[in-house]
Amino acid sequence: MEPKLEQLKKYLAQVFDLNSAAALLAWDQETHMPPGGEAARAQQLATLTRLAHENFTSDEIGYLLDDLEPYRESLPYESNEASLLRITRREYTRKRQVPAEFIARFTELASLSYQNWVRARPDSDFASTQPWLERLLDSSREYSSYFSGIDHLADPMIDASDPGMSALEIRRIFTELREELLPLVEAIISQPPADDSCLRQHFAESEQLAFAQHVVRRLGYDFTRGRLDKTAHPFATRFSIDDVRITTRVDENFLGQALFSTIHEAGHAMYEQGIDPALARTPLAEGTSSGVHESQSRLWENLVGRSRGFWQYFYPQLQTRFPAQLAHVPLDIFYRAVNKVERSLVRVEADEVTYNLHVMMRFDFELQMLEDKLAIRDLPEAWYARMEKDMGVVPPSDALGAMQDVHWFAGTIGGSFQGYTLGNVMGTQFFETAVHAHTSIPDEIAQGEFGTLHHWLRENIYRHGSKFTPPELIQRATGGPLSIAPYIRYLRKK
Amino acid sequence: MEPKLEQLKKYLAQVFDLNSAAALLAWDQETHMPPGGEAARAQQLATLTRLAHENFTSDEIGYLLDDLEPYRESLPYESNEASLLRITRREYTRKRQVPAEFIARFTELASLSYQNWVRARPDSDFASTQPWLERLLDSSREYSSYFSGIDHLADPMIDASDPGMSALEIRRIFTELREELLPLVEAIISQPPADDSCLRQHFAESEQLAFAQHVVRRLGYDFTRGRLDKTAHPFATRFSIDDVRITTRVDENFLGQALFSTIHEAGHAMYEQGIDPALARTPLAEGTSSGVHESQSRLWENLVGRSRGFWQYFYPQLQTRFPAQLAHVPLDIFYRAVNKVERSLVRVEADEVTYNLHVMMRFDFELQMLEDKLAIRDLPEAWYARMEKDMGVVPPSDALGAMQDVHWFAGTIGGSFQGYTLGNVMGTQFFETAVHAHTSIPDEIAQGEFGTLHHWLRENIYRHGSKFTPPELIQRATGGPLSIAPYIRYLRKK
Repeated sequence: MEPKLEQLKKYLAQVFDLNSAAALLAWDQETHMPPGGEAARAQQLATLTRLAHENFTSDEIGYLLDDLEPYRESLPYESNEASLLRITRREYTRKRQVPAEFIARFTELASLSYQNWVRARPDSDFASTQPWLERLLDSSREYSSYFSGIDHLADPMIDASDPGMSALEIRRIFTELREELLPLVEAIISQPPADDSCLRQHFAESEQLAFAQHVVRRLGYDFTRGRLDKTAHPFATRFSIDDVRITTRVDENFLGQALFSTIHEAGHAMYEQGIDPALARTPLAEGTSSGVHESQSRLWENLVGRSRGFWQYFYPQLQTRFPAQLAHVPLDIFYRAVNKVERSLVRVEADEVTYNLHVMMRFDFELQMLEDKLAIRDLPEAWYARMEKDMGVVPPSDALGAMQDVHWFAGTIGGSFQGYTLGNVMGTQFFETAVHAHTSIPDEIAQGEFGTLHHWLRENIYRHGSKFTPPELIQRATGGPLSIAPYIRYLRKK
Repeated sequence: MEPKLEQLKKYLAQVFDLNSAAALLAWDQETHMPPGGEAARAQQLATLTRLAHENFTSDEIGYLLDDLEPYRESLPYESNEASLLRITRREYTRKRQVPAEFIARFTELASLSYQNWVRARPDSDFASTQPWLERLLDSSREYSSYFSGIDHLADPMIDASDPGMSALEIRRIFTELREELLPLVEAIISQPPADDSCLRQHFAESEQLAFAQHVVRRLGYDFTRGRLDKTAHPFATRFSIDDVRITTRVDENFLGQALFSTIHEAGHAMYEQGIDPALARTPLAEGTSSGVHESQSRLWENLVGRSRGFWQYFYPQLQTRFPAQLAHVPLDIFYRAVNKVERSLVRVEADEVTYNLHVMMRFDFELQMLEDKLAIRDLPEAWYARMEKDMGVVPPSDALGAMQDVHWFAGTIGGSFQGYTLGNVMGTQFFETAVHAHTSIPDEIAQGEFGTLHHWLRENIYRHGSKFTPPELIQRATGGPLSIAPYIRYLRKK
């Protein structure tokens, strides 16, 4: 191998290790850390992310990339080495815009704000989070200010999570999608609502967790290279390809919460677990974008986990686990309950149709806050008004309103939500293509077999890590560009 | 403040954060990490310890220390700032001897060896650990080879954990102590043994853990700045003064295991939790030596936790928790059971008297291995022979023999054990002094009040962190040098 490539990989491995340690500091903060650890943990996160940033954006890496440019040009585009040099160059160029000092400051701020949000949310204490959000909004603007020639302040943040995307492009997709969704929501909601009372009984936490574990193990989440813990907001995180962890939360009075959030996070985690080991400890050893990541979590959560076939297989097992609650509930009633479309308050519990309205609202608010058209202090009221307009319901509290999602309280305001709806769209495209290639997949799902689907996803999506941009990956996997048609088709049919 | 001191503190804080993140990587490895994570975790630990070492031993820190030398001389010896400069200089000089590349290599080796030991120990599979131990022995010799002018290969390792100590000095102390202990052991063992069958019943794990938590909370371990988990080998670790965690292990058929190991580790943790917050994120924010650390764990475990007064208070509560097992066991029988002296196989379960014979054996073996007088492959047999000679018992397996302690399998061979016996000696000196100053302490213990003792320890030991060397600390706290007399006096009396 080229000695300079060897040297570059050594530097990149060090950056990967620093980022992995930072991810563990964050995971521990949300799972096991005692409250006293807060202040020091924020400092530790700041130090490690700063060092990772400094190391990655060092002059040495720039020189190596320059020196390796002819070598890269000599390699096939799709090779691991050319991809490594290409993506590292892209990320290097992007991250060099931002000073390490800012990264450290922002990380510490986000960690402290997160910890405040965890305390404030149960009491709907928006006032205590307001100054944190204001500082995070300022910091988000500062982040964007390091990039020149941008059309919208949100663009650098959108590009960081969904490379190649912009506020303009997402607005275009969302407008198109919204026009299709609104009449669909109206049509469904004007029908008599499904009865989901069977989900709203008492289900013991330990049994819920055991069932969720059983399900995601069957889907292909590898517990020898992962684990499941409880947190305030479910998430997936990875420390290496062979250590990808998920978290969930449990509502003992609602069966849907733990189960579907566990499947969702397992979808993210199977993506990371399925990356080609040859890419380990490089910038390629992670999902390629927020949207593609969400395509995997939403695919498993909805296209698989809310399908009739899935429940044909799993429902008898669930009934055995909760006989008092479910023995007399027929499969059809249960299936309708987990697919109930309603004017919901909470994004992560929303059905497949209205979910995107939640996302679009957050996306619009992000842009408005960045544009100074919506002040942080007015966010709760704006939330109520928009929920009433879009969904016909008003949240009873900020905990179920503007404070429900962790994102803005622990990261940038901008670029945080578009990936979810992009993921819904892409996920359906991927699933449709997989079923087209292997028509047995729906029948296999009904028999509790997920190997063919999992294998198709690993071959076409997972193993590539971030070698390809989202448009490249969609083109390679489906033979065409991003399209909302399969998603609308799927929703109409269902 | 001096701007250069400010700059030095900034560098040292960064090193502290790297070391804290490495400690979290290690804690997670032993508590929660899935097996798949092993290889990557070893690399991550190697990277972080290397970076911490490189940062700490950088030329910049040397220049700053040189420049600050006149300032240090202008300050009172006991001031935080003079102590910071003095101890940083000592550690800088010591660590500069060792290349960062060695630290990374050794850390990765130790991590992989540890993970192998965890798998091999249940099956007493010494053969699989032998090549790891041989490499660790070579590495331990290599470590010492970086230091010049030493009397014994073990000295640099001993000095790293017990500053100022040497193999020669410890041999002198151990010889003196051994002469006192051997007749004492003989005398006790020739009496009819205490009956500890009351401890050897079935005690549910969850109840054992709940009781252990209750006890250490009462002693003063702060759970808002700590937590308790289960591991193969109990330990205490800290990520900051406000996040100091302990672990334990539970034997459902022996009550002594979880309880006394939890008290032991809480003793370590209270030391770290009690350090003056003004020392945070500096090299002073940790216990001053292995021996002083063990003095705290052994003091709480034995001088407090195996005292009659302690059980006068806690035994009725324990009986309430385990009525079937203990309701009819009188306090006196229980007290004798937890103080039973016997020819024990396992160090961490040994009584206060024979415990030191276990330590001395390990210390002698360490020196012999370093001197090439004992080969790794002969270690199990040497263990059997020495156990028979010293204790009159032979372990039935290597799991209860040469493989029982984690230390050599996850660290250096040399400097690993002397601290335990030094701790027994110092702990008694400290306790005697505290009781002399506050004669109410024994009565308070019998009433479940530990505040006076805890306060004395915090004032005289904890808060200083590593500002003072062990001899300085002993002199300040007790008014005299290290002495085995109080320890022998205590054992004879008991």
